[in-house]
Amino acid sequence: MAGNVMGKLFSASTFGESHGKAVGVVVDGCPSKFPLTEEDVQRELDRRRPGQSELSSPRTEKDRVEILSGVFQGLTTGTPICLIVFNRDMEPGDYAAIRDRYRPGHGDWSYQQKYGIRDYQGGGRSSARETIGRVCAGAIAKKVLAGQNVKILGHVIQVGSIRAAAFDPAFIEKNPVRCADREMAEKMAKQIHFARDKGDSIGGIVEVRATGLPPGIGEPVFDRLDAALARAILSIPAVKGIEFGSGFEAAEMTGSTHNDEMTADGFASNHAGGMLGGISTGQDIVFRFPVKPTSSIRVPQRTVDRNGNEVKIITEGRHDPCIAPRVVPVAEAMTAIVLLDLWMQQKARTF
Amino acid sequence: MAGNVMGKLFSASTFGESHGKAVGVVVDGCPSKFPLTEEDVQRELDRRRPGQSELSSPRTEKDRVEILSGVFQGLTTGTPICLIVFNRDMEPGDYAAIRDRYRPGHGDWSYQQKYGIRDYQGGGRSSARETIGRVCAGAIAKKVLAGQNVKILGHVIQVGSIRAAAFDPAFIEKNPVRCADREMAEKMAKQIHFARDKGDSIGGIVEVRATGLPPGIGEPVFDRLDAALARAILSIPAVKGIEFGSGFEAAEMTGSTHNDEMTADGFASNHAGGMLGGISTGQDIVFRFPVKPTSSIRVPQRTVDRNGNEVKIITEGRHDPCIAPRVVPVAEAMTAIVLLDLWMQQKARTF
Amino acid sequence: MAGNVMGKLFSASTFGESHGKAVGVVVDGCPSKFPLTEEDVQRELDRRRPGQSELSSPRTEKDRVEILSGVFQGLTTGTPICLIVFNRDMEPGDYAAIRDRYRPGHGDWSYQQKYGIRDYQGGGRSSARETIGRVCAGAIAKKVLAGQNVKILGHVIQVGSIRAAAFDPAFIEKNPVRCADREMAEKMAKQIHFARDKGDSIGGIVEVRATGLPPGIGEPVFDRLDAALARAILSIPAVKGIEFGSGFEAAEMTGSTHNDEMTADGFASNHAGGMLGGISTGQDIVFRFPVKPTSSIRVPQRTVDRNGNEVKIITEGRHDPCIAPRVVPVAEAMTAIVLLDLWMQQKARTF
Amino acid sequence: MAGNVMGKLFSASTFGESHGKAVGVVVDGCPSKFPLTEEDVQRELDRRRPGQSELSSPRTEKDRVEILSGVFQGLTTGTPICLIVFNRDMEPGDYAAIRDRYRPGHGDWSYQQKYGIRDYQGGGRSSARETIGRVCAGAIAKKVLAGQNVKILGHVIQVGSIRAAAFDPAFIEKNPVRCADREMAEKMAKQIHFARDKGDSIGGIVEVRATGLPPGIGEPVFDRLDAALARAILSIPAVKGIEFGSGFEAAEMTGSTHNDEMTADGFASNHAGGMLGGISTGQDIVFRFPVKPTSSIRVPQRTVDRNGNEVKIITEGRHDPCIAPRVVPVAEAMTAIVLLDLWMQQKARTF
Repeated sequence: MAGNVMGKLFSASTFGESHGKAVGVVVDGCPSKFPLTEEDVQRELDRRRPGQSELSSPRTEKDRVEILSGVFQGLTTGTPICLIVFNRDMEPGDYAAIRDRYRPGHGDWSYQQKYGIRDYQGGGRSSARETIGRVCAGAIAKKVLAGQNVKILGHVIQVGSIRAAAFDPAFIEKNPVRCADREMAEKMAKQIHFARDKGDSIGGIVEVRATGLPPGIGEPVFDRLDAALARAILSIPAVKGIEFGSGFEAAEMTGSTHNDEMTADGFASNHAGGMLGGISTGQDIVFRFPVKPTSSIRVPQRTVDRNGNEVKIITEGRHDPCIAPRVVPVAEAMTAIVLLDLWMQQKARTF
Repeated sequence: MAGNVMGKLFSASTFGESHGKAVGVVVDGCPSKFPLTEEDVQRELDRRRPGQSELSSPRTEKDRVEILSGVFQGLTTGTPICLIVFNRDMEPGDYAAIRDRYRPGHGDWSYQQKYGIRDYQGGGRSSARETIGRVCAGAIAKKVLAGQNVKILGHVIQVGSIRAAAFDPAFIEKNPVRCADREMAEKMAKQIHFARDKGDSIGGIVEVRATGLPPGIGEPVFDRLDAALARAILSIPAVKGIEFGSGFEAAEMTGSTHNDEMTADGFASNHAGGMLGGISTGQDIVFRFPVKPTSSIRVPQRTVDRNGNEVKIITEGRHDPCIAPRVVPVAEAMTAIVLLDLWMQQKARTF
Repeated sequence: MAGNVMGKLFSASTFGESHGKAVGVVVDGCPSKFPLTEEDVQRELDRRRPGQSELSSPRTEKDRVEILSGVFQGLTTGTPICLIVFNRDMEPGDYAAIRDRYRPGHGDWSYQQKYGIRDYQGGGRSSARETIGRVCAGAIAKKVLAGQNVKILGHVIQVGSIRAAAFDPAFIEKNPVRCADREMAEKMAKQIHFARDKGDSIGGIVEVRATGLPPGIGEPVFDRLDAALARAILSIPAVKGIEFGSGFEAAEMTGSTHNDEMTADGFASNHAGGMLGGISTGQDIVFRFPVKPTSSIRVPQRTVDRNGNEVKIITEGRHDPCIAPRVVPVAEAMTAIVLLDLWMQQKARTF
Repeated sequence: MAGNVMGKLFSASTFGESHGKAVGVVVDGCPSKFPLTEEDVQRELDRRRPGQSELSSPRTEKDRVEILSGVFQGLTTGTPICLIVFNRDMEPGDYAAIRDRYRPGHGDWSYQQKYGIRDYQGGGRSSARETIGRVCAGAIAKKVLAGQNVKILGHVIQVGSIRAAAFDPAFIEKNPVRCADREMAEKMAKQIHFARDKGDSIGGIVEVRATGLPPGIGEPVFDRLDAALARAILSIPAVKGIEFGSGFEAAEMTGSTHNDEMTADGFASNHAGGMLGGISTGQDIVFRFPVKPTSSIRVPQRTVDRNGNEVKIITEGRHDPCIAPRVVPVAEAMTAIVLLDLWMQQKARTF
């Protein structure tokens, strides 16, 4: 399968450009007889869409999903589920200025090099709108997993230099930063406002936790749980890394402090992030990843045009000054797809 | 394909347990008419094997590779190349003590949960010896890439709290830590000795740089270059994360500082790590990853036995107190496989 | 990837049920910068659609295709191409009678066994309408191949006991049977009318020829050219076999008569059907396959209902009495997808 | 995965050339805790090997299999199983004569075109010895399936113009033709002797029956049971086609005679060959395929040398005058791999 299809048993094949007719996904391999409605998917899409708060892009896409196939009388049939969102609030005029010049930090130049052509309107395929298909597929996977008591929860733990300390999961969806720390959420919002007011943007770090996954999920050696999640998360635009459990801090630890001891009551700690040898242990899956500052800024920058001439560029348009909060539902979606796909692989061998 | 096969066009299917008869790999999809000798592969294996210095495990495997197929009169034929290393210096007696108890930080418990059985000798499939097959496959990929002027270079940039500052590539293979900083290399070695003397272990960070890769490599959206590399690197035992370019530091940066400006002479910086939109830009590919402290330590730790009883465990045997230096050639191998596979995918569409 | 996705580099992910909202396909991996219009695809769809003549089903779907993504200013961009046909001429009432009973020769019973649920309207996913997505994907592949001078031509060589003898390719699309033999075409049409008038149906045999394929295409051993084509053709509903070159007649031949001798002017014969060792030889690719008589007939038959009670069934509705002519464009589409995908695999290794 | 790997969940990656060091396979994805010995595999290999009777090639390979990994204390561990057979009875001198000329009916010329190089000794990778790896993998799959009461049985139903009529399964392995009809087996043997005595060869037809497969196996639409089997069987050297159930005869049938009626006692007939809509029905899986006459004959034939000059060629060496009997265990192996892999896919979705 080519690069826009993922998943061995639960497959998602995404399509669509920012300013094309539609974006969406074909989900193949979903277990049958599951209740599924457009509302189930819409709920997740609403978490992803722009214009949710003053912190995010004012583009006012309604992003209404339609299920075109694979569901009959409210139940999945086991056949491919096509989910589609037609693009409506497009402003092609916005992008004329950047047709002939490559925006720093975007895929403009690399797409042009790879394909010899690119849809320059709104970033085309490299736009964050591509993630709509992922969120649709993930909404299905999340629902299947929820039926098995697996919950996936993402939240922003850092914006700029502000780091969350407290963890109040109920607060996450109540603030535009999607931070689980009330106090720090406010400081993060200020940092985002500060960047926006300067026409600039700011980075952040997201953490994802999955609870309820049984032990035994993950396929050594190349589809280890960590490997599969790393691939999925790094495929999200703007993500620049990932770490599991103690992550980069493990470099400074000793084996005697890092190893998670086992007791009659289970593991005594979770430095490993819920997996050993790439296989889930039944503990919480925990990972974090950095989201780079949004590339589209109004601060003038140097770039080149298609003839190689140096020019200055200002990226106008409607852009989130900090994309981390909106990456949260996308990361949850990718996590759900991976966990379900790997779980299905594990079920496959129960002869 | 199941979990022990990777690669769409250049495939590697690894096999073998630490104390089984052999470990190895079948490489399928290698371009034909390439000169390939056992010595080409042996050179890489020698960099990986234990017993290279006082810093690493004293297990004295010779690890002699044999090519069983796919090469005719010194040239690859385009058919599968089976490379095999027979295990010789096995000491099964070493592992009797841990047959019934799960070593903290190892895959013992998770493998048992997943498969209901495990080869407990030397960690079986979850042993670092599994990476021999990867290094064999990677040696081929590295040679093909070298013919295209792509070079891949790994080095240790951190051990414990010691961080390298200088970068002298010629020094890397001249010191047992594989550090490119002469001064820090010595301090790192001391830190490793210190841990070893206490029966403990220490973590580290490895950096990989690939030069010479042309622009256009990487398959959006799910096989983006970063996504594919992340999967490959996270599939290596003991690796707990990865970051590309500015990585986690991007969280604290603004768009105006993070974006790599373009000039008539090319990119003015490389915060992105050599890729944009998941596609190579022609700049150096740069990423780093943490390696956790070796799990096998002589410091007593709590664990449980197969009946769930709490017991103490000391992991005897021959183990590296810091595994980072030996992960370097494995990471280079994985990188080479990914780059070649993605490059082949790019070539495929040149109609 | 799950069962509704095919292709390693040129992927097609089909979706849709007969009486759902839409049917279609996502094509991923198409080379970029190719001119592609909806009309290019529509032309192939028009060959497939029902109601083309008195011989086929009177369902009057217009089957208008829309391209939703992957094409920009008339050129493919290398990103996924979603092609969709909305279902319009649905008569749900037709199918109420067969909701609770399994039509002999259909997938009703097996789908129910597999998924525990099925969309019983018009056969749901097992309807021939599913092939619309294939024809869309194949139209793209055919156009890319045509640019390389590869032509794919299907025709009906047998209906019932009537076998074509002459071969006039220009006549194929001029008669509703898609037979290349003027005289036999008429007899075949009569045989079809005869079956239809009795409320019955009749089988047939289709031949496909591909010319212009260069030598070297096909991936031993499991994606040999014949193996890949066999999989693709057998995945078409109603197809019950396939044979290449001399096919089943080879059983009665000797090596000295079957082997295709080579001369300075090329091969002296083509018993092999254009491939040796599963790799194209540059000769015409030639294969044939039987199409079973349409399962939906008005002749009463025994079957069971969902409670296992024996009942009689008559399948009303709009059905072709001989489906072979309409399978022709589907088979051409599948052939095109396979040839392009395998050719891309061959290109991938040209280092 | 490249062309020498098959299977989504139960993967087989074969390697090896006729006159290389070894042939074999890595099987990944086998369920764990299954008893498996070398003798289990050897039994199947013995059925495939040459020199079993005067009808087959006198090459006296012992073909002793070794299990190198994936089995611990007699049980599979769920990790990759590498099975290997070292080549011993090689006579490289035999093949010097054909180094520079292409044998008609062989892959010599097409391999040369594809790869620009070939191992000309004994056909290299295109030799029938390549099937050893398949038989090894199939032996495992057969054993797993046998534990589920699925039996796979192949037999020769035609040699030249002699067609079997009776079916006595107990007789199959008691005669060198592997024919289930005592009377016809003798006539077939005579036909083979007749061809051999003239330095020629003769074709045949093999039938495979699988009993005990539950309903619901097969993955529409591209991995339908028939599509997956067709691919697997056509990937066997010398096979030129396949037909399921009534197969090519369906062309002459009407819907009312071809449709398998259902009764309270099950299906009243099996024209479909045990599947509907590409999904198993619980009936016997039945298919047949033609095996072309062995290409290697001593009758002089025209061919060209590597410079394009016309030359005569006689293929000396040790070759079966009719390969169909030895294809039987290979076809059973391929069938077993496909059935197990598809069954595992079906199990995967049982949430």
